[in-house]
Amino acid sequence: MSQNPLKKHIQSFQGCLHGGLIKENAEKYGLSEDEILDFSANLNPFKTPFDHPEYGLNFLKLAAESYPETYNYPDNRYLKFREAAATFLNSGIAANGDINNANGGTKANVRLTKENIIPGNGSTEIIRLFCQCVLNEGDKVIIPYPTFGEYEIQCRLQNAEIVYIPQEKVETLTVDELKEIGAKILFICNPNNPTAVLRKREDLIKLAEICEKSKTVLFMDEAFIEISDPDQSVCDLVADHKFVFIMRSLTKCFEIPGIRLGFGAAHPEIAAALNNARLSWNLSPLQENVGAALMSMGGGVNSDYLIKSRELILKEANFLKDELSKVWGFKPGVATTNFLLVDISERTVKSTELVERFAKNGILIRNCISFKGLGEDFIRIAVRTRPENEKFIKTIPIVFDEWAKDFADSELKSALTTHKKGLQQNKRETCEYYPCHFEGQDCTFCYCPFYPCKDERGGGKYIQSSKGGQVWSCVDCYVPHIPPVVEKMLEGLMEDGDTEEILKKEWDEIILPIMEERDSDHVLAVCRRIKEEKDKNPK
Amino acid sequence: MSQNPLKKHIQSFQGCLHGGLIKENAEKYGLSEDEILDFSANLNPFKTPFDHPEYGLNFLKLAAESYPETYNYPDNRYLKFREAAATFLNSGIAANGDINNANGGTKANVRLTKENIIPGNGSTEIIRLFCQCVLNEGDKVIIPYPTFGEYEIQCRLQNAEIVYIPQEKVETLTVDELKEIGAKILFICNPNNPTAVLRKREDLIKLAEICEKSKTVLFMDEAFIEISDPDQSVCDLVADHKFVFIMRSLTKCFEIPGIRLGFGAAHPEIAAALNNARLSWNLSPLQENVGAALMSMGGGVNSDYLIKSRELILKEANFLKDELSKVWGFKPGVATTNFLLVDISERTVKSTELVERFAKNGILIRNCISFKGLGEDFIRIAVRTRPENEKFIKTIPIVFDEWAKDFADSELKSALTTHKKGLQQNKRETCEYYPCHFEGQDCTFCYCPFYPCKDERGGGKYIQSSKGGQVWSCVDCYVPHIPPVVEKMLEGLMEDGDTEEILKKEWDEIILPIMEERDSDHVLAVCRRIKEEKDKNPK
Repeated sequence: MSQNPLKKHIQSFQGCLHGGLIKENAEKYGLSEDEILDFSANLNPFKTPFDHPEYGLNFLKLAAESYPETYNYPDNRYLKFREAAATFLNSGIAANGDINNANGGTKANVRLTKENIIPGNGSTEIIRLFCQCVLNEGDKVIIPYPTFGEYEIQCRLQNAEIVYIPQEKVETLTVDELKEIGAKILFICNPNNPTAVLRKREDLIKLAEICEKSKTVLFMDEAFIEISDPDQSVCDLVADHKFVFIMRSLTKCFEIPGIRLGFGAAHPEIAAALNNARLSWNLSPLQENVGAALMSMGGGVNSDYLIKSRELILKEANFLKDELSKVWGFKPGVATTNFLLVDISERTVKSTELVERFAKNGILIRNCISFKGLGEDFIRIAVRTRPENEKFIKTIPIVFDEWAKDFADSELKSALTTHKKGLQQNKRETCEYYPCHFEGQDCTFCYCPFYPCKDERGGGKYIQSSKGGQVWSCVDCYVPHIPPVVEKMLEGLMEDGDTEEILKKEWDEIILPIMEERDSDHVLAVCRRIKEEKDKNPK
Repeated sequence: MSQNPLKKHIQSFQGCLHGGLIKENAEKYGLSEDEILDFSANLNPFKTPFDHPEYGLNFLKLAAESYPETYNYPDNRYLKFREAAATFLNSGIAANGDINNANGGTKANVRLTKENIIPGNGSTEIIRLFCQCVLNEGDKVIIPYPTFGEYEIQCRLQNAEIVYIPQEKVETLTVDELKEIGAKILFICNPNNPTAVLRKREDLIKLAEICEKSKTVLFMDEAFIEISDPDQSVCDLVADHKFVFIMRSLTKCFEIPGIRLGFGAAHPEIAAALNNARLSWNLSPLQENVGAALMSMGGGVNSDYLIKSRELILKEANFLKDELSKVWGFKPGVATTNFLLVDISERTVKSTELVERFAKNGILIRNCISFKGLGEDFIRIAVRTRPENEKFIKTIPIVFDEWAKDFADSELKSALTTHKKGLQQNKRETCEYYPCHFEGQDCTFCYCPFYPCKDERGGGKYIQSSKGGQVWSCVDCYVPHIPPVVEKMLEGLMEDGDTEEILKKEWDEIILPIMEERDSDHVLAVCRRIKEEKDKNPK
């Protein structure tokens, strides 16, 4: 008999991994929070409207005005916020007016009201509420991967069965397929976190019709839509679709993750039930007042603030994409919003280690290991301001230099260990890159223990790796792979003593004489032969 | 096929009725919010610590300090608040140290840590979270009634089966009974809302042991414990009981319903799972900072602030109880905390109407119709400051005068209608109070249309009903029940015209001449006879 009253699946429940762990990383790496530059949480780099006096919003004034209301329970109807949110959505719907929907009609005249709006203590509460109100144990949901992790978490909380499909499969979903799966909800994040892929409104309208026919709710997470392309929103569909649900966040577009504000938009019948099932008083008066103020900025989704935000974000996203494209082994994805997914699978270093190394340098980037399908091959980078983005770009070679040095150290240790055990096996037979330097090379120091020596006499040199930095390249240095050199070095390293000290001594006594051609024995002869062969057969 | 994606029981879901509806009532009755005195929400009448400069806490300073944190996601671990909350609970546990628990040991050395604490966006989120993590569809829970409505609501959200037992039954629950019911949770509110009955710690320790043996979680809602008697808390039990769960609220004791703060305390294993299942970032930095500041006031549950709060509350609760005891037909319950339950079943007026009549007068009281078992026979009154409590007491006779007048009006209309239809039936045969005035009385005007006429010549007079007010008593007035008087009045009232005008005329032409003994016909003779009979046979 269980001695724990919690449901079985809750007993071992794990929450969602998120970015933005500034405090935790400051503690972990002994940094002050101010030293940390957070590229792991996706916020508007244009800063909050409160930081722009020209928009006439003052946070502390709102706090002072809200203070007397802390003496009373909030009005759980949240009329002010819900009305403002509906008006905000309507400001975007007009722009969508000309686009025909699948029924052939236009949506120009759709107007949402407060009866469509469900306020949330952050948009995650909206996901949670919706799952709680729709999903019974064992119900199926479809989650195209990779995507935001909270869908899975909130569905797992309901003990629902998750059907994963690749993001690309969404394009070809049919009514029959959906009916066969029999899922209650299909989660679409637009633009998608972490891939930044932005789906087109016309495609989503078709998807909504398919979902309606198969009685699968199309759950549209539009958390980033205002800072990518609000014209692709399908929020107007909730006016007459009970099987479309819209989620919006104020966190990202207004840079207020510490306020906790989001909302759902749904058909009035759905919204009414959700408002009844919602946690009572889930917003404080301050949250409601801040939310109403932000939702009421002139122009709505096309306010001066949001237009400028989108301009800045697009410019910086493209800057980052260009810069990251120049980094060897980095493949940035599309630049549509305030984050970029970067494929680092060609690099030896895995995302978990890379993220830690950036964190030590005061820069948080998002490890994508928690996104299904991405493993340790991807990182996600938030788009920030130009000076911040440049700092990030400049930190890349520093991090990789550190990594390469540490990697060489550990490889050396491993080489010594295998040697000591008499198990040294030359990598010639197994390595796909052999011979990376010359036929007959010794691969014991596959990773040079002197990296980056920065001494060009051995053949190494700095190469441009990106506008922001240089990388020390060893491609033309053969010294630590010459068999008698390796033998000599190993002799010394096998002796007791501090490895760092031994290496210093070996640099002076073995490596430098070769580089300076002061070595008179056969080692130098080998070097010369290699050089001559290389000169005869340049690659 | 359902055209609504929500679960069936959610489609018609109704939330919990709560007090504190200041905005709604202001709109409904055309009052400004400042005019309203809220006795319907139970808050600390000593006001927030922020209103007492001597405690050195400043809300706006905290807001300003928290503002920079709104740019970052909150640290979802909430270490600061959880540590402060554990310390706060520990301050009360020491005081409980000498009381033996059921195992015979003392709890003096129990110390809770942040690992026991689950932060909540209001304590209702804690109820919701716990229910979500414990209850599967169809699971049973025990709710002793009457009690706080959110237990039922949150259990219904999980589609659990609710087993109601009377509050008194809790005293005699046995392990066998609990096992037979097979409930997952037993909800105990201490002191109980709305009855204010405070259970003893020693009884609760026994109950906890019974619950542990039957694997039913004892869910202890201690939302009001700090402002009643913290020595009766059993929060220390969570240190080694997985089947005890404690819920605390900061809303009531610190008068901050607009901040939204509560927490759960549980065995570390339970708390860890709940913290994983909890909504990410459910508290804002401001909430965490306010919570940590309040939980860290020197002395904890025995801070100067809370000691003075309890003194004020006990004094005022007893004042209100005394005063309400003097109101005819009002039976106040126990005075243990900052609210009183009042049995009004002896009054004709029902709670719903009474609450509306008070609201029109700018005073909100709690209609108890939403509390199972109380029907329209109870109201709940928050304990406020002396001037506010006095204002409430003084409003009672005003409300009852208004009620009586309106009641008489409506009775008159009803009497006229039945007369017109030729269906007038004398109430003599059916009324249990007949004859309330004299044998042979006419009951058409059971409720006098002139009430309160305030003319003592008819026999009526003001009587002391309570210290705060007087009530016009008609017990010695026979005039509107004398058959020929009734006949004359009805003749006039049956004619077309404004009832108010006709009544004025009848007062002058029929009633006054009798009172002044200017009526020379047989009516006066009847009056005299009645008077003589009454003098001969005084009751």
